[in-house]
Amino acid sequence: MQEIRVELTDHPKPKPTAADKLEFGTFFTDHMFVMNYDEGEGWHDARIVPFGPIELSPAAMCLHYGQSVFEGMKAYRAVDGRVLLFRPDKNMARLNSSNDRLCIPLIDEKFCEKAIEKLVSIEKDWIPSAEGTSLYIRPFIIGIDPHIGVHPARHLVFIILCCPVGAYYPEGLNPVKIYVEKNYVRAVRGGMGYTKTAGNYAASLKAQDEAEKQNYTQVLWLDGVERKYIEEVGTMNVFFVIGDEIVTPELQGSILPGITRMSSIELLKSWGMNVVERKISIDELAEAARNGRLKEAFGTGTAAVISPIGHLKWGDEIMDINNGEIGPISQRLYDTLTGIQWGKIKDTFGWTVEVK
Amino acid sequence: MQEIRVELTDHPKPKPTAADKLEFGTFFTDHMFVMNYDEGEGWHDARIVPFGPIELSPAAMCLHYGQSVFEGMKAYRAVDGRVLLFRPDKNMARLNSSNDRLCIPLIDEKFCEKAIEKLVSIEKDWIPSAEGTSLYIRPFIIGIDPHIGVHPARHLVFIILCCPVGAYYPEGLNPVKIYVEKNYVRAVRGGMGYTKTAGNYAASLKAQDEAEKQNYTQVLWLDGVERKYIEEVGTMNVFFVIGDEIVTPELQGSILPGITRMSSIELLKSWGMNVVERKISIDELAEAARNGRLKEAFGTGTAAVISPIGHLKWGDEIMDINNGEIGPISQRLYDTLTGIQWGKIKDTFGWTVEVK
Repeated sequence: MQEIRVELTDHPKPKPTAADKLEFGTFFTDHMFVMNYDEGEGWHDARIVPFGPIELSPAAMCLHYGQSVFEGMKAYRAVDGRVLLFRPDKNMARLNSSNDRLCIPLIDEKFCEKAIEKLVSIEKDWIPSAEGTSLYIRPFIIGIDPHIGVHPARHLVFIILCCPVGAYYPEGLNPVKIYVEKNYVRAVRGGMGYTKTAGNYAASLKAQDEAEKQNYTQVLWLDGVERKYIEEVGTMNVFFVIGDEIVTPELQGSILPGITRMSSIELLKSWGMNVVERKISIDELAEAARNGRLKEAFGTGTAAVISPIGHLKWGDEIMDINNGEIGPISQRLYDTLTGIQWGKIKDTFGWTVEVK
Repeated sequence: MQEIRVELTDHPKPKPTAADKLEFGTFFTDHMFVMNYDEGEGWHDARIVPFGPIELSPAAMCLHYGQSVFEGMKAYRAVDGRVLLFRPDKNMARLNSSNDRLCIPLIDEKFCEKAIEKLVSIEKDWIPSAEGTSLYIRPFIIGIDPHIGVHPARHLVFIILCCPVGAYYPEGLNPVKIYVEKNYVRAVRGGMGYTKTAGNYAASLKAQDEAEKQNYTQVLWLDGVERKYIEEVGTMNVFFVIGDEIVTPELQGSILPGITRMSSIELLKSWGMNVVERKISIDELAEAARNGRLKEAFGTGTAAVISPIGHLKWGDEIMDINNGEIGPISQRLYDTLTGIQWGKIKDTFGWTVEVK
């Protein structure tokens, strides 16, 4: 395994104070992890260096052709002071799945987990400790060949950034308003929907922008083929409680295999609940809402953990869910997942990894 | 209209010599055009400066979320020494169409045409004059907010690069081998297929890579919904001569509206030929090949202009087209388009713009 060279900053920045709101993705810690790939040499020169700008050729391939993948994860300050990561092996496995689809050389997952641990350990004083706060971790890989022409990059860089972030729900879990997107498609089978790659997020901007202009928080994406099966909500996976069944769309290539999704399914099963991964059409959902069987709806993702949906608009039809309040299953999932993440609940699944 | 500030380099690079092969996208001229967008200020600070690296935050949005659009066009050294652009207004209009889809602030098309002319005029000694060579021009826009979070950028930069490029066909037009892609999809209606944005090219890498490993030049893309209608070939539009009809897939949202495509249609119509934009399925094409009615097939694009297809593989079925040789319509289009571009043929369409 490579050594990780460490060069500490001479100019540490002041850490945000309790009064800072820690708007997501705005503050960065003092250091970042960097590693290069060059054809013939493989991944090499792993190092932790002061956070700062990077220099790229204006012809760098990532700027033109989007050969770019990333992950999102968090380090949590547990109630007993320990620093915990949540299933980092799953993030690194998914990064390699994205790499494969984007023709990016695979990383050594175990080594990159160690790199994350080492970076977080150096930045441990940046992990906020107020309720609901955490250190967001953003590993990403970009192709940097200074070359105009569509082909896989031969020179890439892997960078890991850290951002202290505030509580996602400073005022408690507030169910959101969502509308069903009819014009735009996020991804289609055969495309890149199952990966965390730049283009998927670029594709989502326009619909998200239009939703916000109409005072909706996010859109519910339908499949690109039949335009009827539910895929995701904004940048989260989605679950529905219909009668005594908990349904989430099955993974079939266009849906991101979320780690909070996976963990939610495992938790629900451990509680003996009837959770099913299958196709679910917007018609079926609307019918369930009409006859009173749609009891809860929620998104799952790293940032929000659980995001209850209180109001869903599909054309002229409005579905009000659980009177716009968070339901018992959403609440239990949220409490359990965040309880494990912040070390308040015993982790019987072996999901957390302590950073020493 | 803004002024364009000019800062010339103190260190001009040696120009490539006739012996240099001018591999596409590898050599860059001495200068580049740069213009910034900042929320509240609009597009401002237009300047032509020495070509060189750019500095970005590692959190720059374009690196993570793919908010990036571009154009591709050429300046030609005409046989009488004039410098010609080909339909630059169409490139700028398409750039704004891409901008709209990607939530990027629109540019002033006329101003940006002038910026291209000014840059090309400064770099005119970089335009090669050997047969078939040209100066490739790459305008692009990227979102650069140093912010992790999916939303449209509030700070962007518009850059124009120039690359002297060699003849695409130094040994004459050689028909290429293509296979029909069955697993991967480039774009789907409702997505971004009609734009020149980074993610579309990222999505194409894997299929292209697999095609090359099987000794094919490119793939023929089918639609993402029914997986049967022909869309594009590699990064080009595609035409088929079937009986006395010339067919190209209609624009319906997932296909790039190519400027060479548009010009080819206009030329064919001016010659009184029966050119039709419509849906065409791979089954129809294979049937036409079987009964001898498929006479020619070719791609159209800025780089190759016309790229004849001599061999098409669809699963186990091989279609050999015109005995693997270039057909008369492909040849006539190539000769006419390149004749207009290099000023060898009178431009009765008003397509060329002289750079003074």
